[in-house]
Amino acid sequence: MKIKQRIYNIINDNDKKNTIGNIFDGIIITLIIINIITVIAETFRLPESVKNIFNIIEIVSVIIFTAEYILRVWTADLIYKKLNPVKARLKYIFSFMAIIDLLAILPFYIPFIIPVDLRVLRALRIIRLLRIFKVNRYTSALSTIAEVLKRKKSQLISSILVVFLLMIVSSVLMYNIENTAQPDTFKNAFSALWWAVATFTTVGYGDIYPVTVLGKILSAVIAILGIGLVAVPTGIISAGFMEQIEKSDDDDKKEYCPYCGHKL
Amino acid sequence: MKIKQRIYNIINDNDKKNTIGNIFDGIIITLIIINIITVIAETFRLPESVKNIFNIIEIVSVIIFTAEYILRVWTADLIYKKLNPVKARLKYIFSFMAIIDLLAILPFYIPFIIPVDLRVLRALRIIRLLRIFKVNRYTSALSTIAEVLKRKKSQLISSILVVFLLMIVSSVLMYNIENTAQPDTFKNAFSALWWAVATFTTVGYGDIYPVTVLGKILSAVIAILGIGLVAVPTGIISAGFMEQIEKSDDDDKKEYCPYCGHKL
Amino acid sequence: MKIKQRIYNIINDNDKKNTIGNIFDGIIITLIIINIITVIAETFRLPESVKNIFNIIEIVSVIIFTAEYILRVWTADLIYKKLNPVKARLKYIFSFMAIIDLLAILPFYIPFIIPVDLRVLRALRIIRLLRIFKVNRYTSALSTIAEVLKRKKSQLISSILVVFLLMIVSSVLMYNIENTAQPDTFKNAFSALWWAVATFTTVGYGDIYPVTVLGKILSAVIAILGIGLVAVPTGIISAGFMEQIEKSDDDDKKEYCPYCGHKL
Amino acid sequence: MKIKQRIYNIINDNDKKNTIGNIFDGIIITLIIINIITVIAETFRLPESVKNIFNIIEIVSVIIFTAEYILRVWTADLIYKKLNPVKARLKYIFSFMAIIDLLAILPFYIPFIIPVDLRVLRALRIIRLLRIFKVNRYTSALSTIAEVLKRKKSQLISSILVVFLLMIVSSVLMYNIENTAQPDTFKNAFSALWWAVATFTTVGYGDIYPVTVLGKILSAVIAILGIGLVAVPTGIISAGFMEQIEKSDDDDKKEYCPYCGHKL
Repeated sequence: MKIKQRIYNIINDNDKKNTIGNIFDGIIITLIIINIITVIAETFRLPESVKNIFNIIEIVSVIIFTAEYILRVWTADLIYKKLNPVKARLKYIFSFMAIIDLLAILPFYIPFIIPVDLRVLRALRIIRLLRIFKVNRYTSALSTIAEVLKRKKSQLISSILVVFLLMIVSSVLMYNIENTAQPDTFKNAFSALWWAVATFTTVGYGDIYPVTVLGKILSAVIAILGIGLVAVPTGIISAGFMEQIEKSDDDDKKEYCPYCGHKL
Repeated sequence: MKIKQRIYNIINDNDKKNTIGNIFDGIIITLIIINIITVIAETFRLPESVKNIFNIIEIVSVIIFTAEYILRVWTADLIYKKLNPVKARLKYIFSFMAIIDLLAILPFYIPFIIPVDLRVLRALRIIRLLRIFKVNRYTSALSTIAEVLKRKKSQLISSILVVFLLMIVSSVLMYNIENTAQPDTFKNAFSALWWAVATFTTVGYGDIYPVTVLGKILSAVIAILGIGLVAVPTGIISAGFMEQIEKSDDDDKKEYCPYCGHKL
Repeated sequence: MKIKQRIYNIINDNDKKNTIGNIFDGIIITLIIINIITVIAETFRLPESVKNIFNIIEIVSVIIFTAEYILRVWTADLIYKKLNPVKARLKYIFSFMAIIDLLAILPFYIPFIIPVDLRVLRALRIIRLLRIFKVNRYTSALSTIAEVLKRKKSQLISSILVVFLLMIVSSVLMYNIENTAQPDTFKNAFSALWWAVATFTTVGYGDIYPVTVLGKILSAVIAILGIGLVAVPTGIISAGFMEQIEKSDDDDKKEYCPYCGHKL
Repeated sequence: MKIKQRIYNIINDNDKKNTIGNIFDGIIITLIIINIITVIAETFRLPESVKNIFNIIEIVSVIIFTAEYILRVWTADLIYKKLNPVKARLKYIFSFMAIIDLLAILPFYIPFIIPVDLRVLRALRIIRLLRIFKVNRYTSALSTIAEVLKRKKSQLISSILVVFLLMIVSSVLMYNIENTAQPDTFKNAFSALWWAVATFTTVGYGDIYPVTVLGKILSAVIAILGIGLVAVPTGIISAGFMEQIEKSDDDDKKEYCPYCGHKL
């Protein structure tokens, strides 16, 4: 039990004074960054010798990540102390972070069991990058952001829905306007939808844009509306963060009224 | 009367426990999404067999939407109970959602009465997509957004007017600056206006941009001003959402002072 | 005196019930919009007959605008009642709106006095568009926006200064990085500055962009910083609008404490 | 001691009535702006005569800046009065503004000590531009902005980290999707990362964009997410500025309750 508690303290390090825990965190984060670099580097044409080094890094990483995963599952009963060990571990295994941890190591083991096409495998390997979220696990900032977005979910979804509708309406309109002038560019409503996305989000790659007067007027309206519709989610989120601050202020004020100074 | 009340409850479903109402909503939403997909798909080159399926979908959709529209009008007297049935129905017919509902089915019936060019018809059909707003009818989020935008209407219109004026002034200036260097691109003030929209909204397709030193300086000023002018509506909307939150907080606080806890 | 007061009421119409005042406003606004359209249309190749119509519109507009300007100056002593008539009129003549009004009619009269090149004149004519601000003169919304921007002036200028510095630093850096790879595109630091503006403001026309690895990394850093630096003025302005709302709320609350309901 | 105090007052001029201090500030700011112009102008092809003038400007500037730096270090003991003179000067030398001041003059002196390639030197010279921050040293606005950004640092870094992760994940995905269709454009994950930056920041130069249907769908998702992720830092910063205003309001309110007016 004592060893378990110590391991738990190391891998769930919230204490800045915990030297071994900090070293452990440093190793994991370094490994994740090395893995990100190799994932990107693998897409370049590389000499055989570098590929071999990458294979070694891959194997070492997977061993360490697997060991970490096993230790996390083993010590999971210390997180949910009220549950019995089996339930606690199962609860942990199905938590968001644990699923990501498993997905980061699975692509290595799967080909040993089922022969899968290597190409597909490589695409799966990027999930490993999600482990970078672990860096944030210890910070409360990300959870604050997530909380704000969650509270404003219905408003954000509504505004996105409106944008989505406007995109479809404008793309069908644009297809009808531009199709005769540019039959190759505005081939179908999907091409027009691609234009609508580029215009609404103000990305504007420049591969597709209207050339007719009517098309340009519609595009102008959409681009200006697009800005308005960027402003709405920003406004929602701003208000959400303000609310958050006021809430936490209220919690601080529990004892004294900040306005009159009377004890409550 | 009893049947009418039940139908009203089903089609104006606000109760999550109302199973039949939920199924009805599900069917309508699914139909709308199918219609969106067919509207986009129709712009692709399709084999005759698929076109036939689309025609069947079209007919089925219009029948269901028409039935729904008639039922909504019929039960409209239950919404405005204080008005007499005829007035209540007329009031409903001229409400925003009812007009959209009618516009979604009208393009199907019009050619039976007046022979209209099919091409025009297809463009009209996209109005049907507006029905997706029905999905939001039940959520209060969209109405909150609409309320905020409404309250800030005068400020938003003012800021858009300023942007509009700046666009025109800068486009006439830009036409005079760039016309000699690029007579084909900056043909007239309308071309320059198209540039102004692309620059102000930061879309920047890349089909039109200044090449002279003076033109580039003006473009830089406009692009930077453009960002400032995006910030203003965002600020207005943010403040609007904050105000909204504080207002609803105030409503909650009616009974007790949230600061001292004294009963009011 | 009585006629003067009536004319003053018509041209400074703030009363919605003032029918003649509303008609007068409508005529002026319509004329301004017609003038905007002609300014843009004049840049197109037009037949002689249309040009003649435009000339007539020009003369009629200038006559009406001149009459309006004279009447405004004449009745200016009713605005500043405490000043003597001459001082009141001089004060009005040097007010922002009066200068704009004068600038809108001057380009027509100047060539009668000094023979000026017609080309220059046409460029000056766009000042006439500034008269559209008159539409807003009657709305308090624009003045609220102006007030917020004014109060936050020092913060906004500071953030723009930082952006400006970053643009210059990054453009000199980018010139040194990209000059050897693209000597024609990145000719000098001014070309690079043009790139910096397009990147910071996220316009991205696509006429100039880095091709080297180092250049792309710098461009990525600048683009991400650019977003951050858009967020700062937006945040400043948002906070400014919130402050504005709270201030006007405070004014309303003067009599009763909104928290306890006690009379003050 | 008296001369030292007077020099200190001149170079650390916070008093608007201090005429000599204002002149000194004016000279330094003018010199910085002249230096910015020469740094940019030097990248153009210039005749020998202009180059000579630039050399003279360079030498004069460095002399003045060096004198200013020495005076600042000499009078540094008046800033930190509690420390002994040596410690005070060392503390000043390692302050942010003093390091920038030193970096602005060092590139001139280095080649006299170590023979460095002139090309590298020219790139270093841009650091001199950082001196423009001195203009802001006297305004509190920039420090307010810096304070807000500092307070929200953890939230901003978290949101940037999420964007960074999404960029890497999406670029590896995009590389796999587009590589076969555009092997020259999407050469490797680095090319795809360049695309991800251009899309997330909505710059969209147009040198790289997806052409496959799957690639366009991914790009649309990324562009829309990109807008959402711009909204988050904006919201954080907005809330930060609001908090700042409320804090300074609270400081004003210390003596009287702003709601009831009771003395505290």
